[in-house]
Amino acid sequence: MKPLVHNFFENTATVQLDHRILATATLFSICGLCLPSNSRHFLQSKSESRMAEESVKKWVLMVTAQTPTNIAVIKYWGKRDEKLILPINDSISVTLDPSHLCTTTSVAVSPDFTHDRMWLNGKEMSLSGGRYQNCLRELRARASEVEDEEKGIKITKKDWEKLHVHVASYNNFPTAAGLASSAAGFACLVFSLAKLMNVKEDQSKLSAIARQGSGSACRSLYGGFVKWIMGKEEDGSDSVAVQLADENHWDDLVIIIAVVSSRQKETSSTSGMLETVETSMLIQHRAKEVVPKRIIQMEEAIKNRDFPSFARLSCADSNQFHAVCLDTSPPIFYMNDTSHRIISCVEKWNRFEGTPQVAYTFDAGPNAVLISHNRKTAALLLQRLLFHFPPNSDTDLNSYVIGDKTILKDAGIQNMKDVEALAPPPETKDNIQTQKYKGDVSYFICTRPGRGPVLLTDESQALLDLKTGLPK
Amino acid sequence: MKPLVHNFFENTATVQLDHRILATATLFSICGLCLPSNSRHFLQSKSESRMAEESVKKWVLMVTAQTPTNIAVIKYWGKRDEKLILPINDSISVTLDPSHLCTTTSVAVSPDFTHDRMWLNGKEMSLSGGRYQNCLRELRARASEVEDEEKGIKITKKDWEKLHVHVASYNNFPTAAGLASSAAGFACLVFSLAKLMNVKEDQSKLSAIARQGSGSACRSLYGGFVKWIMGKEEDGSDSVAVQLADENHWDDLVIIIAVVSSRQKETSSTSGMLETVETSMLIQHRAKEVVPKRIIQMEEAIKNRDFPSFARLSCADSNQFHAVCLDTSPPIFYMNDTSHRIISCVEKWNRFEGTPQVAYTFDAGPNAVLISHNRKTAALLLQRLLFHFPPNSDTDLNSYVIGDKTILKDAGIQNMKDVEALAPPPETKDNIQTQKYKGDVSYFICTRPGRGPVLLTDESQALLDLKTGLPK
Repeated sequence: MKPLVHNFFENTATVQLDHRILATATLFSICGLCLPSNSRHFLQSKSESRMAEESVKKWVLMVTAQTPTNIAVIKYWGKRDEKLILPINDSISVTLDPSHLCTTTSVAVSPDFTHDRMWLNGKEMSLSGGRYQNCLRELRARASEVEDEEKGIKITKKDWEKLHVHVASYNNFPTAAGLASSAAGFACLVFSLAKLMNVKEDQSKLSAIARQGSGSACRSLYGGFVKWIMGKEEDGSDSVAVQLADENHWDDLVIIIAVVSSRQKETSSTSGMLETVETSMLIQHRAKEVVPKRIIQMEEAIKNRDFPSFARLSCADSNQFHAVCLDTSPPIFYMNDTSHRIISCVEKWNRFEGTPQVAYTFDAGPNAVLISHNRKTAALLLQRLLFHFPPNSDTDLNSYVIGDKTILKDAGIQNMKDVEALAPPPETKDNIQTQKYKGDVSYFICTRPGRGPVLLTDESQALLDLKTGLPK
Repeated sequence: MKPLVHNFFENTATVQLDHRILATATLFSICGLCLPSNSRHFLQSKSESRMAEESVKKWVLMVTAQTPTNIAVIKYWGKRDEKLILPINDSISVTLDPSHLCTTTSVAVSPDFTHDRMWLNGKEMSLSGGRYQNCLRELRARASEVEDEEKGIKITKKDWEKLHVHVASYNNFPTAAGLASSAAGFACLVFSLAKLMNVKEDQSKLSAIARQGSGSACRSLYGGFVKWIMGKEEDGSDSVAVQLADENHWDDLVIIIAVVSSRQKETSSTSGMLETVETSMLIQHRAKEVVPKRIIQMEEAIKNRDFPSFARLSCADSNQFHAVCLDTSPPIFYMNDTSHRIISCVEKWNRFEGTPQVAYTFDAGPNAVLISHNRKTAALLLQRLLFHFPPNSDTDLNSYVIGDKTILKDAGIQNMKDVEALAPPPETKDNIQTQKYKGDVSYFICTRPGRGPVLLTDESQALLDLKTGLPK
């Protein structure tokens, strides 16, 4: 099935209204529309009872979208409003290429659906949580009429209040790996439902809805470089994401993510940032005095493709975010010894070269996101990473470095023998610095800055069956 | 040999001056006293040349002292004057029982010594470093006449400018273990030299001299609970340590130190705090806004033996110190995964009990200093520590828990079978929480708050040979 609307901005004004049908639908609504009767009004555009019987049972309207994840380079940590998810400072992120890290979500509506349901990576999850409910409520309130004449489907604005949706979502990366799956997930939920429901809001307004699912999700509604403006309004209406530059603006950057093995149970970012705001003596100083200056400097660095400034700000802000986590009571540790060793490796190399080659940033987990100045430095970085963090003996190189494998080729590494033959980097001098930590990294993902959400028009990519509305 | 002065405070005013000798000594000084001629003036009190010959060659005047180490519970991190070692905030420490952690230092003077020399743990070290020179210069400037009529020794104030000293120092704990050995070391150097040189300054003034060797050394000049007042004067004269309460004031406390194995090369605290002051955006806020309030609260908590407040402040301040280290560029990591796990273990237990049982604090290294409310909680803590961090199979329990072994007895642990039989603590619920980290702790030291510096009068405890002035 083709989605009704291919490009949100181009088509939002093109919905044709059938006043006769709309009136009928409204009437049904007034009568207290329940699902069996609700389904009947869609039949008003058809005249044959046989066809009506078929439509009642079988039609499912579906949209499938793909949304990237993002990594903050100026961090979001701390809310001023827990319910609306309003942050205490602006943040800036880089959207990651969805080819390597993204969420794909199919959303469907049918008069046959008896309640809202969701499947995440094939497993049914509850949608009753406040964050899902907030997004659904906000979207339903903004839903518009949808019509598919060919299929004889007509949904009025009012109908959306009663119709139920099915959602199936899939991450092309491990959900548990701490790679901002909730950001991509909520962004994709909101983006795809907005398409399905024909929500006539611009992307920025949609970001404010996604924000209510997961704060950082609002930044996944754009590609490239994105700023989440904290806003001032109490209702959160001005706490939205804006694009600073698209992914083509600075396309030299190469990103390598080290997915770090962890034995620790981690604090969720939701409870973590709440505890930081409540107990850290440093967080308010960070939010009010430090971050505003860094936001201006980071915007400037991105605008000018000034890598040294970009790297210094990214590293400093990542470290400060983890510092306020540590200043929390009880303290929160997201980075572990492996994270520290990756930082030491990068810092040593940057110092040795006299100017930053690579920026690092860590979210609420031990994984390192390493942003290289260009392909050449990325290849040199990968050599260093594989030297210090070789895979376990039973690991295949092909599954150890995933994503854009051309970086591996640039690094001159084709097999495990090449990894074993890697010489110590010139900046390492003593035994400690050339120590190897086999198996401390689970795998590496090579990627780059990427595009924002897109609709997937190929039905084979849909996660729900168009006939049943259930996961394929 | 008995030291000339047993108790500094009691005896400083009792030195008898021999004006005739003093005049002679001064004369020699004016003539440009070099060692061979310098030694001659001591002979003025003797009339026989045979005895003179003996004295010239053989007399060595020696003092031996023992000085405790200390652990800060409100941390010192950052200097406003690198040379004078003046801090950017007050700090408060607990002095540790010297029976388990101390430095013993013998200092000797002899006209035969050709230059200042020092041996640390039996190995000769250079005394040419600025910090040693600062301490020696300050002490020499304050030296007074010393006379031992029985031995026929008379040293004038002026003589001290030319006489050389030998220093032998020994730590009863591993120097490399990161247990504030420089604090105890410089405190002991200054304390013993002050005794030897008959320096007529009170303990607080001596602390200002020790401070110029190693900042935290000033706090090791007192037992119990000690505050280092940052001071305001440019010359550092008011940057001194004062005793808040002696070790008997709060004698319930039991301290367990976990010496944590580390593979990391650590940043020295000297360069670390310099980098923090230069690069952290949070350190000034900590020093100016956070610490002054905590100092007042901590003094109050100590005064009232208010353990919950004492524990909350200690933990929060340790974590904030490590937070500003992390906020440094490049970031400094002193705690490792084992340190984090010890914190988690204590935090979980404290939360489970509803009120703090144990306080933790970490200096510039991964070792945990755990302060228990009393013997009972210390025994319960030791059970938990041994449950989570059992020794390697080849380690003897007797060398794994050292210091005050009665805590081990209180914990009902006599051998390795008892360690293996330990049940998971009631506050642990899931698998992650009951995980064991065998070998991640090198050993535990059980101790308590302790006394300040003392002179050791038993010559068998001296580290230098009274005849040769060289290490025994």
